[in-house]
Amino acid sequence: MKNLIIIGTGGFALEVYEHAQNSLGYGSEYIIKGFIEGNIPCDYEKYKSLPANVFGNCIEYQICENDIFFLAIADPIIKEKVANIILDKGGEFINLIHNTSVVSKHAKLGSGIFLGAFSIVTGDAIIDDFVMINTYSGISHGCKIGAYSSVMGHVGINGNTIIGHHSYWGSGSRCLPGSRIGNNTKIGAASLVLKKVKDNSTVFGVPAKYI
Amino acid sequence: MKNLIIIGTGGFALEVYEHAQNSLGYGSEYIIKGFIEGNIPCDYEKYKSLPANVFGNCIEYQICENDIFFLAIADPIIKEKVANIILDKGGEFINLIHNTSVVSKHAKLGSGIFLGAFSIVTGDAIIDDFVMINTYSGISHGCKIGAYSSVMGHVGINGNTIIGHHSYWGSGSRCLPGSRIGNNTKIGAASLVLKKVKDNSTVFGVPAKYI
Amino acid sequence: MKNLIIIGTGGFALEVYEHAQNSLGYGSEYIIKGFIEGNIPCDYEKYKSLPANVFGNCIEYQICENDIFFLAIADPIIKEKVANIILDKGGEFINLIHNTSVVSKHAKLGSGIFLGAFSIVTGDAIIDDFVMINTYSGISHGCKIGAYSSVMGHVGINGNTIIGHHSYWGSGSRCLPGSRIGNNTKIGAASLVLKKVKDNSTVFGVPAKYI
Repeated sequence: MKNLIIIGTGGFALEVYEHAQNSLGYGSEYIIKGFIEGNIPCDYEKYKSLPANVFGNCIEYQICENDIFFLAIADPIIKEKVANIILDKGGEFINLIHNTSVVSKHAKLGSGIFLGAFSIVTGDAIIDDFVMINTYSGISHGCKIGAYSSVMGHVGINGNTIIGHHSYWGSGSRCLPGSRIGNNTKIGAASLVLKKVKDNSTVFGVPAKYI
Repeated sequence: MKNLIIIGTGGFALEVYEHAQNSLGYGSEYIIKGFIEGNIPCDYEKYKSLPANVFGNCIEYQICENDIFFLAIADPIIKEKVANIILDKGGEFINLIHNTSVVSKHAKLGSGIFLGAFSIVTGDAIIDDFVMINTYSGISHGCKIGAYSSVMGHVGINGNTIIGHHSYWGSGSRCLPGSRIGNNTKIGAASLVLKKVKDNSTVFGVPAKYI
Repeated sequence: MKNLIIIGTGGFALEVYEHAQNSLGYGSEYIIKGFIEGNIPCDYEKYKSLPANVFGNCIEYQICENDIFFLAIADPIIKEKVANIILDKGGEFINLIHNTSVVSKHAKLGSGIFLGAFSIVTGDAIIDDFVMINTYSGISHGCKIGAYSSVMGHVGINGNTIIGHHSYWGSGSRCLPGSRIGNNTKIGAASLVLKKVKDNSTVFGVPAKYI
């Protein structure tokens, strides 16, 4: 049995806390040990009612035997920074796959991945390390999602789309099949990508335009 | 065992009828007794095939022992009006929480609430009395939804959003995290609220503008 | 026990292959025999890893005893063309209803229908032959969807909407309740139909306009 440390103490960390209790393997492969601060200080008031402790911050935290980790951080750049602090100490990250999600046996998943309630990963999709796929978001056949990317809720990544690393997809955004999305990109909420988004750019709207 | 009376006899009431049979507590805490008319007369033809009766209208209906009620009405203003007719007679309303929904143990729910199939209420969200959260709609951490509000399907209420009473969210609408939405507001279908909607107003579009 | 032949060998066929294994009746009413080509040649490389064979194309294929069929094709026009090749030989089509979908007992379903993961068909909806309702798409009370229509993911067909045959609904599109949608129509991804779409037309945007 492993002990899960959730990294992050914001609102999303509270969601991850419950998500972890409803994920595959909870109670048999791991239990929740508590939280450590990521990039921002903890609002301890919010955590008082939880049966889980906050053990200081991720820089000071000394890894214990059987500790495993999960990043409760949505921002792609901060995710990488904080992940590296733990990886450098030899920490290991697990995936949290909600028990309501539908995941293909043929999909390839990295580590540190979040698959939210009612998420779908189909066919031969490839999901790199530290990718978040939030609630109601579907990844179709032939898609690849680069490391540290974050896909918010109600997002549709349609067939054969290739997404670079550190890409952020706002709530309810989507793309046509076969889209090509660069690294360090931001797709605004409720936007529709028709075909292509260049590296280091932000798009928004229906259809999505560079802003 | 309680006997559930569904108030309303339109198309949505037929959905509520089946929803109630797939909600937590059905068959152990309550069974369905039938319908009463809300604000509009019943099209009895539609109800002929159902194994449930229509018992006249909500003004004339005399409450029986073990009766409990649920409003199958989506319009926020009419919801309040009809709810008060029943409340004034001493009637009690229950929540209908679909057995496929994912609801946090830390969420606070009022009464008369509808949580549709595949709805999600996370973290410490607060849902006031007579709020409808329809199918595929997700309420994130730190949100508050005021009384009599109606959230249609595929809606994303993102983190730390505060919504007043009598707010109507059209199908597929969403808001950025931390939005502030007034009382008596209407968010058009497929709209994206960026930040704020004033009391007594209607917005529409991506991004949503006052109309 | 029947033997299911999936018609189509593209990316969607791989999704259908897994969908079939998670549909009602799999393993008791049918098992998967393999694939035949529809309108496009098979990329055999993609199918090498699957425990299912490709038996040539649908024109040459000779129907065996206990064969049943399913179309893994999304384009409405091609769907009809390929379906007729099999129907002319006396082949029969089944429905593939994902075990996570929520389908009303009062809905009327034709044959050859796809109901994706987390799809919802409520109330008295009528779904004609060879209609696809993909993942996260909801069909409300009083709706009718004409033959060969394809509804992609995250689509909301709201109450009392009537849709003709050969209608294609892009990812995340939706319509207001009571809409009237013609035959041979295409609704662009992320679009919102307010009321009406004429026969043989394409619409796009929020709100959707003819293009």
